[in-house]
Amino acid sequence: MSKHQDKSAPLRMGVVLFPGFQALDVFGPVDCINVLSWSHSVTLALISSTLEPVTTKSPASANAIGQSVVPTHTFATAPSLDLLLVPGGLGTRGSNLAIEEAISYIRNVYPQLCYLITVCTGSGLAARAGVLDGKRATTNKMAWAEITGLAVNVDWVPRARWVVDGNVWSSSGVSAGIDVTLAWIEEVYGSEVARKISNSIEYTRHEDPIHDPFAELHGL
Amino acid sequence: MSKHQDKSAPLRMGVVLFPGFQALDVFGPVDCINVLSWSHSVTLALISSTLEPVTTKSPASANAIGQSVVPTHTFATAPSLDLLLVPGGLGTRGSNLAIEEAISYIRNVYPQLCYLITVCTGSGLAARAGVLDGKRATTNKMAWAEITGLAVNVDWVPRARWVVDGNVWSSSGVSAGIDVTLAWIEEVYGSEVARKISNSIEYTRHEDPIHDPFAELHGL
Repeated sequence: MSKHQDKSAPLRMGVVLFPGFQALDVFGPVDCINVLSWSHSVTLALISSTLEPVTTKSPASANAIGQSVVPTHTFATAPSLDLLLVPGGLGTRGSNLAIEEAISYIRNVYPQLCYLITVCTGSGLAARAGVLDGKRATTNKMAWAEITGLAVNVDWVPRARWVVDGNVWSSSGVSAGIDVTLAWIEEVYGSEVARKISNSIEYTRHEDPIHDPFAELHGL
Repeated sequence: MSKHQDKSAPLRMGVVLFPGFQALDVFGPVDCINVLSWSHSVTLALISSTLEPVTTKSPASANAIGQSVVPTHTFATAPSLDLLLVPGGLGTRGSNLAIEEAISYIRNVYPQLCYLITVCTGSGLAARAGVLDGKRATTNKMAWAEITGLAVNVDWVPRARWVVDGNVWSSSGVSAGIDVTLAWIEEVYGSEVARKISNSIEYTRHEDPIHDPFAELHGL
């Protein structure tokens, strides 16, 4: 497991984007990193199939609203990264060119990463890329059966706000992405930095990774 | 106070965007509305000075990272709205063309709105637009002195996760935007709809508007 050891060196972060990503899966974690970047050196690559804006609207949700975010790199031009964030969302479901390209990218880049964070059903993309094989991981609790059914070689943990195994930090659904990111910041930058960020965004953290009210809600 | 009475009619929502908006101020509330739009009719306008992508990076934060979101309308072409969301962020501070245009838009559109939601220092923009005069409102607790100093005719409430006065719903900092939005959804669409959305995003709500750990943290 490689680590981002030198905290004075820029943290090189990347985020995978695809049509139908869940907005808060990205912007919960990324806004924590935005605040981190006010005091620490960070570079951010928003990575997708093309440089066209990427919508949060799933191709399968005809009547839903969406917002479009501008990528900075394609999967072919993405820079070297320390940390990759993989969000979930309705767009992770099924197979299409954007999702297959995202899965290939995750498979190819994982060996060079210091850390991988998955949020919500983003763990399904990491699982389909094979990078969770033999690892403990968690995912969205409402989509539990669907996502865990994608990969029998993953040791899925049903009651967890987030799970750390080696350099893979996987979280439960949507808002849990904020908690896993703050826990990751605490691990890498220290508890004081994490505390300042959570106070800055007035967020009451889930600090216990095995406290999971949503597992209980879904009888897991 | 006008209301969005007919829940089968589309909710026409708008969001003000300007350089240096806080990402989570927008995408916490908006992702709640994204999930609402899976089951209820919603239209969304992302409104800014021009149709160029709008960055979360503040002009004042040279080294910070940012993400760019594509507006759907300008202040001049924005459609009629039921609900306007005004986010905060470092970009609200001071005076520049984008912020002055946002303030003018808020002042001009407010009389036609059913509801106004402000998040974080977005209440400072609403205050500068004059639409909070004589009303109770709250804001970000870390930026308390700065924002409340902008408008002496507002009855600023120091200990509040959010405040409702008439058709104005103002929240405390950043993450509090999720709570005020879920409270607003509960008021307009009912508690069951709000509960389904918060469970869907695995968010543990602050349900008591006067419980405010961040006011305590800042000695307010």
